[in-house]
Amino acid sequence: MPKNLYNLPNPLPEEELFEPLIPDRGVLIERVVSAGQTTPEGEWYDQHRDEWVVLLQGKAVLAYADGRILHLCPGDHVLIPAHEKHRVEKTSADPPCIWLTVHGCLV
Amino acid sequence: MPKNLYNLPNPLPEEELFEPLIPDRGVLIERVVSAGQTTPEGEWYDQHRDEWVVLLQGKAVLAYADGRILHLCPGDHVLIPAHEKHRVEKTSADPPCIWLTVHGCLV
Repeated sequence: MPKNLYNLPNPLPEEELFEPLIPDRGVLIERVVSAGQTTPEGEWYDQHRDEWVVLLQGKAVLAYADGRILHLCPGDHVLIPAHEKHRVEKTSADPPCIWLTVHGCLV
Repeated sequence: MPKNLYNLPNPLPEEELFEPLIPDRGVLIERVVSAGQTTPEGEWYDQHRDEWVVLLQGKAVLAYADGRILHLCPGDHVLIPAHEKHRVEKTSADPPCIWLTVHGCLV
């Protein structure tokens, strides 16, 4: 049986869940489950690799250091080049947000 | 506005739709839309790169040259190492199958 991205642990852990779907040999494919968690106040993601990310379930808000705000619905995808500072401002808890991310040298 | 994986052209083209979501600089992230199409009879995919694939909508059947058959529902994901011969035996047309694939050196 193949694994399924929509199967969630019950109950969800208190912390955001980061699950690599393949070993990270330069390209990381990861499922992230967020249920209300956000990037801590005043902090930014500043990643050394490019990230392509799609929201598969839930609703979320991404914010960029340049002031852009993105409201994401299921299926919405964005490419975040390395060192483009961004943060997760909001994630829905019901349903939880399921993200699929690909980290690597993409652009 | 971010692009959305679930937005499909209407009507769908007659052929299977392969849409790169980022430029292919070694890692290709692609959306594939299949509506009843299958790998031609007697043919196999025999790819030079590893492929990670998730079915996001629809139902599909994958077959491997070693005889394994996988019935896929939305969220099911599989890793297909380079040169693992496989074919798409069935894809639902209503709703159409939406696949997300990542091709690259993954394993």
